[in-house]
Amino acid sequence: MNAVDIINRKRLGGVLTEEQIEYMVMGFTEGMIPDYQMSALLMAVCLKGMTKEETVQLTRIMRDSGETVDLSEIKGIKVDKHSTGGVGDKTTLIVAPVAAACGVPIAKMSGRGLGFTGGTVDKMESIPGFVTSMERSRFIESVNETGIAVIGQTGHIAPADKKMYALRDVTGTTESISLITSSIMSKKLAAGADAIVLDVKCGSGAFMKNYEDARELAEWMVDIGRGNGKRMTAVISDMEQPLGRAVGNALEVQEAIEVLKGGGPEDIRNLSLGLAAEMILLGDRADGGRANAEELAREALESGRALEKFRRFVENQGGNPDITEDTALFAQPAFAVEVRAEEAGYVTGLDALQIGLASQHAGAGRETKEDEIDMAAGIILDKKTGDEICAGDLLCTVYGNDKEKTEAGARESRKAYSIGLQRPEKRELIKEIID
Amino acid sequence: MNAVDIINRKRLGGVLTEEQIEYMVMGFTEGMIPDYQMSALLMAVCLKGMTKEETVQLTRIMRDSGETVDLSEIKGIKVDKHSTGGVGDKTTLIVAPVAAACGVPIAKMSGRGLGFTGGTVDKMESIPGFVTSMERSRFIESVNETGIAVIGQTGHIAPADKKMYALRDVTGTTESISLITSSIMSKKLAAGADAIVLDVKCGSGAFMKNYEDARELAEWMVDIGRGNGKRMTAVISDMEQPLGRAVGNALEVQEAIEVLKGGGPEDIRNLSLGLAAEMILLGDRADGGRANAEELAREALESGRALEKFRRFVENQGGNPDITEDTALFAQPAFAVEVRAEEAGYVTGLDALQIGLASQHAGAGRETKEDEIDMAAGIILDKKTGDEICAGDLLCTVYGNDKEKTEAGARESRKAYSIGLQRPEKRELIKEIID
Repeated sequence: MNAVDIINRKRLGGVLTEEQIEYMVMGFTEGMIPDYQMSALLMAVCLKGMTKEETVQLTRIMRDSGETVDLSEIKGIKVDKHSTGGVGDKTTLIVAPVAAACGVPIAKMSGRGLGFTGGTVDKMESIPGFVTSMERSRFIESVNETGIAVIGQTGHIAPADKKMYALRDVTGTTESISLITSSIMSKKLAAGADAIVLDVKCGSGAFMKNYEDARELAEWMVDIGRGNGKRMTAVISDMEQPLGRAVGNALEVQEAIEVLKGGGPEDIRNLSLGLAAEMILLGDRADGGRANAEELAREALESGRALEKFRRFVENQGGNPDITEDTALFAQPAFAVEVRAEEAGYVTGLDALQIGLASQHAGAGRETKEDEIDMAAGIILDKKTGDEICAGDLLCTVYGNDKEKTEAGARESRKAYSIGLQRPEKRELIKEIID
Repeated sequence: MNAVDIINRKRLGGVLTEEQIEYMVMGFTEGMIPDYQMSALLMAVCLKGMTKEETVQLTRIMRDSGETVDLSEIKGIKVDKHSTGGVGDKTTLIVAPVAAACGVPIAKMSGRGLGFTGGTVDKMESIPGFVTSMERSRFIESVNETGIAVIGQTGHIAPADKKMYALRDVTGTTESISLITSSIMSKKLAAGADAIVLDVKCGSGAFMKNYEDARELAEWMVDIGRGNGKRMTAVISDMEQPLGRAVGNALEVQEAIEVLKGGGPEDIRNLSLGLAAEMILLGDRADGGRANAEELAREALESGRALEKFRRFVENQGGNPDITEDTALFAQPAFAVEVRAEEAGYVTGLDALQIGLASQHAGAGRETKEDEIDMAAGIILDKKTGDEICAGDLLCTVYGNDKEKTEAGARESRKAYSIGLQRPEKRELIKEIID
């Protein structure tokens, strides 16, 4: 086999064999194929595409390039949930205990975040005492006993993806549906669940800005997951404005707890119930189809059983479960800066991307892997799209432990609001379910 | 400026500015842009193309990446000739003295060859005593005095091309009309002539296998040369079978001498006269247009003035001019292997590429830069396409100083001949002139 022949084949729009893909991906990962050959191939893939079959193979090869998690000792159908990333997205913290309360075992491996806020692992660590590293055997045991466990992703998962992504990032080869799909799915497949519910975000605050692109990505991920033997469902959800009212690590955990207690903003509650229902369905825990699954999810929430699951989960991982009753147990911010309306009208838009940037400015996110997250930093949105406002009304409050950063976050937050005289139309939160 | 932005722009089919092209090409040449970014850009260029304007700029930037030759001290319009490369192509050795005899100053910088035979510089060095390295001042003086001088290309010409070509070769990014054109033309432009006649070969023994591709390349080279201020003409000529009857270094010089003496094969004589006429036209040495230029070229050949130019040129560069009278002065091969026909009929095809390979097998060409050329090695073709043959007739003779290699060359030569019962149609040698 010869790298130049393989590159030429793709340049001419040909379909690569599994052996050819493996030769390039593993050769590159192990340092035998130089980066200049890999980047030429990646550009050819960006411009000539890969078939779904090639992408299934690519994803499997990337998955097998490193450690894969064996969850076979956990009873039942293990269901994972993955979001393509949005602003204020704390659904995992709600969905996992709701699904677990309905008998779906949740053995989740989660990443740390780069960007607007931390990832799920970072958010959970805002709970005093909570730890996300544990022995693999303890992890398995925890799920069997508690129904949920969440650990941080190790560096040994899909090293091919890590190396390819770093190269794509500096060679203008990120935009390929096959490369995007295989990057996400190789890691999800390595995490070992039997089924995956994808929450594909769509809108200004998401990776995919428009519906068509989000739908394409959702379909590809579903097909690539199924091609590798997983049960798959994708939910396409709106990310034009942030989800819920809280953005930031400790703030989002507090909002998740509110939802688990039966309160919280409607959008985050409804999306969480929708996603949990899909997990219950894939986990074979609902006899009566989707309507039954939704009922089971709602019942788990309203009965307090999901909250109880959450408390046991927190306690099992060393966290203080009393945080569900006393928010003062969370790290408190030193500064709060209010952003108030200068004019009257309606909020016609609340740019999720801009709120994400504001949150990062305030200290809630990382720019580089080495950055420290300010767990208390973030934003509480008092007004969201469609709300009527008077001049002087509170739009949002920005929190943080660094005065300058908090003020910068407030300045950025203001830019996220569009005010007009016409009440905007309400947007559907769940746009489509691909199952 | 940012490399990833530039790569992305080309990936999306955008047109790059001269500054962007310079940033990438010079950054890469000087080691600031890593090869993996350059290869991604090159693949994007292969698949999305470059406009002629971009290619004019690219070529100029590559030209200016190294040494450029100043020929301004040579009187008259300096005309260069470049062939895209074929088998048995010794036209330069004929064309240069013919044009020089008509008053066109020839100050030629020529490369060594990798492949079937050596380049022009290698061929000339098969003349005992001939040297192709000389001081720049002596080179200029020689042209002013003798009318012709040929020197070897230095390593300082277009280093950007050298580095880019090496990368293209190992990343499947050779096939781009813009990259091919800029690679050839940057070196020709650096060589300093005022006008260039291109001989674009087309057929099995050429880089461009079919007429459409050859025509496209010819047009691009003409446009890119003109875009950089040069007078340009391109001749598209057939390279389906070898040119003339001799393939190999000393053998080709001997055939060129035959032509200069008024003999030699018709094809090589006619193509040489055609190319010389175009050089005379571009050099403003014919008042009466193309017909007049052709007449002048023919007259220079038939009168013996071209042969006399050739002798003065050889003598000026240290060679023994008596080689025009005594072929025994050339290195003689130790072995000769005849290839004879096994059946009767017509030669329906004589694969130029295969004869080239056979010549290389016999020792006439280099596989790597370090290989030594056997100056005496090569092939004399007794039969060419269209010739009638009887079983047992001599098809060709392969010469060389290594018995095994010579025999290998003979085995390969045999494969080049296709024999059939129908006489094939005669092919036009000069297919088109683009001026």
